[in-house]
Amino acid sequence: MENKILLTQTVQKGGCAAKVEAKELRNILNLVSFPKAHSELIVDGRYFDDAAIYQINSDLALVQTLDFFTPILDTPYLFGQVAAANALSDVYAMGGVPKTAMGILAFPLAQFDNSIIVDVMQGACDKISEAGANLVGGHSIDDDTLKFGLSVSGYVHPQKIWKNTGAQIGDILILTKPLGTGTMTAALKRKEATEADIAEAIESMCQLNLVPDLLTEDEKQTIHAATDITGFGFAGHSFQMAKASQVQFAVNFEALPRFSKVNSFLERSFLTKAHRTNANYTQDFIDTQKLKEMDKLVLMDPQTSGGLLLSVSPSRASLILEKIQKTFKHSAVIGVVTELKGDKNLVVQ
Amino acid sequence: MENKILLTQTVQKGGCAAKVEAKELRNILNLVSFPKAHSELIVDGRYFDDAAIYQINSDLALVQTLDFFTPILDTPYLFGQVAAANALSDVYAMGGVPKTAMGILAFPLAQFDNSIIVDVMQGACDKISEAGANLVGGHSIDDDTLKFGLSVSGYVHPQKIWKNTGAQIGDILILTKPLGTGTMTAALKRKEATEADIAEAIESMCQLNLVPDLLTEDEKQTIHAATDITGFGFAGHSFQMAKASQVQFAVNFEALPRFSKVNSFLERSFLTKAHRTNANYTQDFIDTQKLKEMDKLVLMDPQTSGGLLLSVSPSRASLILEKIQKTFKHSAVIGVVTELKGDKNLVVQ
Repeated sequence: MENKILLTQTVQKGGCAAKVEAKELRNILNLVSFPKAHSELIVDGRYFDDAAIYQINSDLALVQTLDFFTPILDTPYLFGQVAAANALSDVYAMGGVPKTAMGILAFPLAQFDNSIIVDVMQGACDKISEAGANLVGGHSIDDDTLKFGLSVSGYVHPQKIWKNTGAQIGDILILTKPLGTGTMTAALKRKEATEADIAEAIESMCQLNLVPDLLTEDEKQTIHAATDITGFGFAGHSFQMAKASQVQFAVNFEALPRFSKVNSFLERSFLTKAHRTNANYTQDFIDTQKLKEMDKLVLMDPQTSGGLLLSVSPSRASLILEKIQKTFKHSAVIGVVTELKGDKNLVVQ
Repeated sequence: MENKILLTQTVQKGGCAAKVEAKELRNILNLVSFPKAHSELIVDGRYFDDAAIYQINSDLALVQTLDFFTPILDTPYLFGQVAAANALSDVYAMGGVPKTAMGILAFPLAQFDNSIIVDVMQGACDKISEAGANLVGGHSIDDDTLKFGLSVSGYVHPQKIWKNTGAQIGDILILTKPLGTGTMTAALKRKEATEADIAEAIESMCQLNLVPDLLTEDEKQTIHAATDITGFGFAGHSFQMAKASQVQFAVNFEALPRFSKVNSFLERSFLTKAHRTNANYTQDFIDTQKLKEMDKLVLMDPQTSGGLLLSVSPSRASLILEKIQKTFKHSAVIGVVTELKGDKNLVVQ
C-alpha cells in the first residue's frame, strides 16, 4: 500500500503561522540602513508587509510582491493553488493585474517523490494561467521542509492604485470572501478534520482575488481603497486600512461573510498562535465590546488567501457589489466608513 | 564569553551546493504544463536557470531573476553582501541595470540573535545601494536554517540584451573575476580555513558584476553575448553559452584568472559534490585532454557570485578590457570564439 505523505504533517508550522511576527520584523528592520528610495518608488513595501509600486512612466507602474510558506493543506496540487492565489492577491489588492511570476521552491529532495513537486508546481501554474500571467523563472533548493511561493510583478496605472490610505467618509465597505480559514486549517493540521470537512475554505483559498479584472476603468476608480485580508485577520487588516485613511470603519458583524462551519471549528478550540497575537496587536484600535467571545475570535482568525476589503464610493457600491457577486458569491456589504471619533479605527457590533 | 555562531556550521549544505541539480529539476518541470507564454516574454527563464526578460514597450524590457541560498560564509554581514551580489548578477549578465529587489529570508527565530539578521540585511542593503537599486519589500519566515536571497527586477533595452546565444566567430572572450570560490568556501565549511585565509575569494564574491554600468550605450553593443559563471563552474557555463551560440570557445588555461591560493586548496582535496556533477554534466561537450587533473578541477569548481564571461567584438576588445580592468583588476582575455568543428563546444588547453 502506498504510504501517502500528508503535507501538513511534514512541517511544524503551517502557512502564515510560520510568518515572522510584524513586531519582531520591525524591530529587526528598524536597525537596518536601507538604500535611499528612488523617486519612482510610489508605494514602499520594504517593511515586508505590502506590495511595492515602482513607476515606469506616466501611464504604467509595476506592482511587486513576494510570498511563500509551508503547507497548510495535505494535497500538493491544492497547496500549490493556494500558495499561488495568495501571492497573486497582493497585486490585485493594489488594483493591479499580474504579469510575471517566479517560483520560490524549497523541498526535501531525498524524502519527497518528484510527483509531489510536480503537483505543487501544476497547482501554481494553473492559477498563474487563470490570472493571465506567466511563470518566467524562479529558484529551488534542497531543504528540510517544503516551502513554496511566488515573486509576482504586475501592472497598474499610477493614478489608479488602490492604496490603503484612500478610504473616504461615507464609503461603503465590501468584503469578497468568507472568514475562517485559520481555524479550519488548524483542525486539518491537528488531523481533527479532513480536506473534505473544510472544502468550503479550500475552494475559497484557491479563488483568485481578480476583482480588478471584473471592473471597467471607470468602475475601478470608484474603489477608493483596498487591502487583502491575510495573516492579521479581519480585525488587523481592516483597522490598518482605517488608520492609514484616518477614518473609522463601522462594521455589522452579522453582515460579515463566514464559512458555514466556522463556529463549530472555533467552538472546538482549533486556534492558532495568531488568534492571540492578532488580538494583542489590535486591542488598542478596535471596539468589539458588544460582541460575544466566539464572534471576536472570527475577527482575529488569520486568513490565508483571504478576500479583498474594498472601500467603495456610495453612489456606485450596489453596482460594484452586483458585478463582484457574479464571481465572489459570498461577497457582501459589511459596513460604512465614518468620521474617526476617539481612537478606535474599527467598531464592530 | 560570547558563544559566537559560525553561520556555515548551522547548515548541512552551503550556497549553490544546496541548489537542486539542473537535471533533476528538468525532470520535474518537464511534467508540468506551463501557462501559455506571452509574446512579451522575450527570454524565458521558467526552467529556473536564467533571468527572464519581459518587454514593456519598444524601448524598455524588464529583467527578472530570483536567487537565495544557505550561508557559505560565517560572518552575517559578508554573507548578506555575497547573497545580494549573486542575485543582482543575473541582471548584469543580461546587460541590464537592477532597479528593485525584494528580500527572501528564512531563519531560526528562536536560536538566532536578531543582530545576525540585521547584519545579513545590512550586507544586502549596502550592495543594493551600491547597485543603485531599491529594496522594495520581501517576505520572511521562521525556519530551521538560515536562507537568504533576493528577487530582482532590472531594466534593459530590448535591442541591447546580452543573450547567451549571440557569440560570433572571431569574438574575443573576457572573464571578469578569478575562479576558485567553490574549493575555498568548502574549506571554510569544513573549518580547515578561516575567512581571513580566503579573503581574496570573499572580496571577489562581494563585488558587483556591474559591467553594464561601466560602458557607454555604443560599447554595450560590442558585447555580443554574456553569462555569469556560477554553480556549474567555468566549464558548465561557458560550454552552455558556446552551445547556445553554435560556436566553439578556444580557451587558454594559463590566461584564466584564478585566486592565488586556489591550487593549494584543490591539492588538499577541498571538493564539493558539484566538482563531480559538473564534470559529468560537461564531459560530452568539452575537450580538456591536454590539461593536468588539477587544472581540470579549476574548470569544474562551482562559483558563487562568479564573474561575467563576455564575448566581445574583436575590434573593440582591448578598449572594453581596459575599461573593465579599472574595476575588475583580475579581468583578462582568456580565448577566442571559433567555428564549431566536431561536437566540443569548449576546448581548453
